[in-house]
Amino acid sequence: MKYIKYKKSLDYSYTLGAYPTINMVKKIKDRARCVFVKDTVAKDKLAELERVCMDSGVRIEYGANKLVDKLRDKESIDVVGIFNKFEKNLEPDSNHLVLVSPSDLGNLGSILRSAAAFCFDNVAIISPAVDIFHPKLVRSSMGEIFNLNIRYFECFDDYISEFSGREVYPFMLNGKEYLKDVKHPNNKYSLVFGNESSGLSKEFLQYNSVKIQHRQDVDSLNLSNAVSIALYEFYKMSLY
Amino acid sequence: MKYIKYKKSLDYSYTLGAYPTINMVKKIKDRARCVFVKDTVAKDKLAELERVCMDSGVRIEYGANKLVDKLRDKESIDVVGIFNKFEKNLEPDSNHLVLVSPSDLGNLGSILRSAAAFCFDNVAIISPAVDIFHPKLVRSSMGEIFNLNIRYFECFDDYISEFSGREVYPFMLNGKEYLKDVKHPNNKYSLVFGNESSGLSKEFLQYNSVKIQHRQDVDSLNLSNAVSIALYEFYKMSLY
Repeated sequence: MKYIKYKKSLDYSYTLGAYPTINMVKKIKDRARCVFVKDTVAKDKLAELERVCMDSGVRIEYGANKLVDKLRDKESIDVVGIFNKFEKNLEPDSNHLVLVSPSDLGNLGSILRSAAAFCFDNVAIISPAVDIFHPKLVRSSMGEIFNLNIRYFECFDDYISEFSGREVYPFMLNGKEYLKDVKHPNNKYSLVFGNESSGLSKEFLQYNSVKIQHRQDVDSLNLSNAVSIALYEFYKMSLY
Repeated sequence: MKYIKYKKSLDYSYTLGAYPTINMVKKIKDRARCVFVKDTVAKDKLAELERVCMDSGVRIEYGANKLVDKLRDKESIDVVGIFNKFEKNLEPDSNHLVLVSPSDLGNLGSILRSAAAFCFDNVAIISPAVDIFHPKLVRSSMGEIFNLNIRYFECFDDYISEFSGREVYPFMLNGKEYLKDVKHPNNKYSLVFGNESSGLSKEFLQYNSVKIQHRQDVDSLNLSNAVSIALYEFYKMSLY
């Protein structure tokens, strides 16, 4: 098998670095193909990697200096894991996070990290959108993409017709209610966020639209920060 | 004057793109040197830029194709602003955000954007740390660095001995109190965050240490997301 630099059309992807590779092997061992390490890898990192791979029955190929150098995007990387891409269905009886056309890999990675942290395990992504299996995103999610159910949809209507009968909270700069005044819904719900530059179209005002209160003369928040604030607030409400 | 690609030692820096350049000229006109535009700039962007520069007495140099191409970091950039670096003092009677050794430019930019949004106008940065005038950071802050008072300190002790008599809330994974249980302080306060990888050292446990509640088996949040959640919560408390 000849591995080439990542592109979206491949049916596999990479974890770059020991930490995301260990996470991947632990969490999706059935989809892990193998792990390549360079001779330069630190002993303690290697020991943990070997333990995890042994437990999961995943093969390690040592001395893969040339291949790792070809696949990595940073000089510090000396471990690369290979895994088969996968799609998981969303749980209909859970709360969802819905991202309409996210366009920034790093942003989406740190959003997915927050989603996992605040127990939003089901994430719908409305196309066009960046590729969740891009190695950069896998890294910025700290491997949390392996814990989540993430599914792409062609458009929001496709999503909502499949998952109807839930409260929908689109976050918009001109939303009707402040986040701080939203009461915890009795029903299952979906939090919806638009693209980094363009936000959500005005059709979303038909739902329970929400805005995050902040100083008037500041344009908006970074998308990942706005989503994290919203996820935390809803998570917090669920604790009482 | 011969302008060269950005480096930290320069006494000036750049805004790359029309939006941050307009913000810069509006907000720190006394420190703006001039604005360079390419022939390819869109008419509507140019019109707004011209209006703002006219109001502020800042010179525009047209047809600066070669210079803009040299200074920019993305092919889409056709406007570059030049401004003198500055340092502002922190207001002693305000709440502060304190960042200990932030190491990621994009993260710090979006943190500063949130700081402005939630009225934390005074930001202390403890060295070593990234350079707030790096053009990438200026962009990811959406120009909000021009609205804030930001000052570097050699160490936290230097900061706190100058700004004593305030509540200190360090955010730590092993903090003593959950953020959701923190009561709004009667006194002025400082929210303190550590480096992306290493967090804060255990000496900070002597203060009112705080943790953000989240699922146990998720390691931590992205720094910018954690800071934004904390700023929003304290901002919200101040509204009641």
